[in-house]
Amino acid sequence: MAPLIVGTLALDTIEAPGEPIRHSFGGSGSFSSLAAGLFGPVRLIGAVGDDFPDEFRAILEAGRVDLRGLSVYPGEKMFRWHGRYQTDRNLRETVGLELNVIAVSEPTIPPEFQDSPCVLIANMPPAKQLHALAQLRGPQFVMVDTVDDWIIAHRAELIEVMNRVDAVLMNDSEARLLAGEANLIRAAHAVRRLGARRLIVKKGEHGCALFDDAGIALLPAYPTPDDVDPTGAGDAFAGGTLGFLATCDAVTPAALRRALRSGTVIASIAVEGHGFATLSRLGRAEVDARLANYEQMLIGP
Amino acid sequence: MAPLIVGTLALDTIEAPGEPIRHSFGGSGSFSSLAAGLFGPVRLIGAVGDDFPDEFRAILEAGRVDLRGLSVYPGEKMFRWHGRYQTDRNLRETVGLELNVIAVSEPTIPPEFQDSPCVLIANMPPAKQLHALAQLRGPQFVMVDTVDDWIIAHRAELIEVMNRVDAVLMNDSEARLLAGEANLIRAAHAVRRLGARRLIVKKGEHGCALFDDAGIALLPAYPTPDDVDPTGAGDAFAGGTLGFLATCDAVTPAALRRALRSGTVIASIAVEGHGFATLSRLGRAEVDARLANYEQMLIGP
Repeated sequence: MAPLIVGTLALDTIEAPGEPIRHSFGGSGSFSSLAAGLFGPVRLIGAVGDDFPDEFRAILEAGRVDLRGLSVYPGEKMFRWHGRYQTDRNLRETVGLELNVIAVSEPTIPPEFQDSPCVLIANMPPAKQLHALAQLRGPQFVMVDTVDDWIIAHRAELIEVMNRVDAVLMNDSEARLLAGEANLIRAAHAVRRLGARRLIVKKGEHGCALFDDAGIALLPAYPTPDDVDPTGAGDAFAGGTLGFLATCDAVTPAALRRALRSGTVIASIAVEGHGFATLSRLGRAEVDARLANYEQMLIGP
Repeated sequence: MAPLIVGTLALDTIEAPGEPIRHSFGGSGSFSSLAAGLFGPVRLIGAVGDDFPDEFRAILEAGRVDLRGLSVYPGEKMFRWHGRYQTDRNLRETVGLELNVIAVSEPTIPPEFQDSPCVLIANMPPAKQLHALAQLRGPQFVMVDTVDDWIIAHRAELIEVMNRVDAVLMNDSEARLLAGEANLIRAAHAVRRLGARRLIVKKGEHGCALFDDAGIALLPAYPTPDDVDPTGAGDAFAGGTLGFLATCDAVTPAALRRALRSGTVIASIAVEGHGFATLSRLGRAEVDARLANYEQMLIGP
């Protein structure tokens, strides 16, 4: 059955040194569902304003994203994010944020989607994540993403979310912050003790690491020479991982590791274009070829 | 035949936030030869003053380091380095540097060591590296390390060194600096075009990457929860890699990748103690156990 993703659809404005200001489609739900769509149809839950562009809708639909779970709010405007990257593309600041429709909506999962077996709940306030979780019926595998804002301001609710799901995604700095521990490995173990059954620590250009009952898996980033825009990379990674998992019979440690490798290579392709430029024209053959190349880089000739 | 290492022996003073100032034995030659010594006897070329401590000598000899290539300079003092780490242990500054015997010596390889097949020339001015290279007779594999000082001040000589050896080691920031290219992958390819047959890019806590004719190998760092002192980690990595290679019949792409994994796990053990604390008590069994664990983390269950 198709995986389900709960996330945002956004209109992004992006600045980077020496480049013109760019306007593009974005949002955690969009990037992750386009990535998951490489493995089959995917259901997207999100809220849009009545200014939701037709072209945006068409890109998602062409990417096998089922939009029946989209809530259109009349009289509301799309969520907008304005970010500025520094010369070191790992560093970015949020210049402007217009919540708009996000401020007035809660994730609402249509009854026919509530039995989705594999679910990704993107970064959002933990209370909204709990609201989404409460609508699911017997999911096999639920993964949630989070950011430092909720670690600081809604720690208890975030920990409640962590304890209710199968895997938690966060950046390395966020794992350190949540655990109050500078060493990343000790921090990861502490976050698992707080309730994360599986923890996936994202490290940007340095890849990710998985901490689960089978041990630690180390996944360096795929080394792309053409990184032009890191926006959405973490979401493409999460969505690609979910999409692959949804094709597996069961979420075994080996399946999750293979899924994370797929997510890793899809994220590396996502950063090679602005906005959805590469994700929206990507096919499985290219993913599989890069995956074979990546595994060769890990395991050797 | 035993591998040969040309490097420094130093008396270190190390500061880190919240810790007492520590005095310990150090130097690129010491760390790398103790690591290489895990695989068999290793020959160390270096210069010391007549204040070379007996205890320092005893630690190296116990670690199978052949000190017949050590030059003792009467009336000269040991090379001394005083470093200060920041809370982020990847960042450090040199507070004090006394070259002493280093300033008046050139690497001198005794005739009986000049036919060593596997050689590591640690970081030093490129002119000294050329001086060492000129004394070698038909080496099979020579690896050199370098730092930003020589990229800035002695670029032409450094490039000459790079063109005369089999593998070049440098940090990621140094590869970017040498290539004048922010993207690490493009920088690495550019450094290879300048003459590095094989390039090993060190990324501190993020591991390393090898660029050679067989492609790219990605080696994340071994995730240790007990990093107490990163001093000498890069040297232990290089020495461990060399020591393993010296046990191989030929330096094939596969052998080099296996060697780099050994170097990676040895470096992770080196950072778990101050100075030589862990390296000097380390045995092959512990290295092999951690190596098996590391390969599991890369390849999965």
